[in-house]
Amino acid sequence: MDTRIIDGIILTPLRQIRHPQGDVFHGMKKSDAGYVGFGEAYFSTVRKGDIKAWKKHLSMTLNLIVPTGKIRFVLFDDRLASPTKGVMNEFTLSRDHYCRLTVPPQVWMAFQGLDDDNQLLNIASMEHAPDEMERLPLTAIPYHWS
Amino acid sequence: MDTRIIDGIILTPLRQIRHPQGDVFHGMKKSDAGYVGFGEAYFSTVRKGDIKAWKKHLSMTLNLIVPTGKIRFVLFDDRLASPTKGVMNEFTLSRDHYCRLTVPPQVWMAFQGLDDDNQLLNIASMEHAPDEMERLPLTAIPYHWS
Repeated sequence: MDTRIIDGIILTPLRQIRHPQGDVFHGMKKSDAGYVGFGEAYFSTVRKGDIKAWKKHLSMTLNLIVPTGKIRFVLFDDRLASPTKGVMNEFTLSRDHYCRLTVPPQVWMAFQGLDDDNQLLNIASMEHAPDEMERLPLTAIPYHWS
Repeated sequence: MDTRIIDGIILTPLRQIRHPQGDVFHGMKKSDAGYVGFGEAYFSTVRKGDIKAWKKHLSMTLNLIVPTGKIRFVLFDDRLASPTKGVMNEFTLSRDHYCRLTVPPQVWMAFQGLDDDNQLLNIASMEHAPDEMERLPLTAIPYHWS
């Protein structure tokens, strides 16, 4: 198995700042690596065990943070000119593995809920546009979802 | 009691888009009212019953969303030139009252956790800077916290 990180993917550990009345969790600053402009921020939830199947954004850069629950992200690179064409990566994010996952355009992503209440924040580089996205059914890209 | 909304405060109902595998919750688009630029996005949590006391940002516009739990925000306007000087507002946000609260600079804010796991997302117009903020102890601005 090719264990390289897909070209353009950035996994950035984020700080959790302890506070007696409730912690502060970093998300993203405009000066951070992976920030390429603000278009929209939205939350997506996924039920325990469920998988939201493959999507590929043509132009949008995603910046994904999991403030609640635990989510497994699987990414697949089929970009013709990519040095990591054919590579698949898996990242599991939660408050215990609190990181920001930057996903460049043109990379396939699916994700699965692993806890009872799972929520991701996407700080997207552009506003949602349905014609900017392609979809594939879950079985189109083989992965052993446990 | 003066029931007007403090000048510059915007309360925007947000959509929750139902999805069989987990809903999508709108947050903020760059074309939305209240968006004045992206500086930083971070989460702040607050324990049940606890209150994070008064803060006033001198330059930052806050855009607050509560994706998890339930938080009471209390705002107080002591801006000398404000048409709503002296007005206090209370807003309680949660998934059941799912709105974005835009808070302009120079307005005092404190907030209280009402559920077991309470989390706000602030989409802030500038990066965090300690010298851009003033604080007051809880009792400095009288409010009947239940």
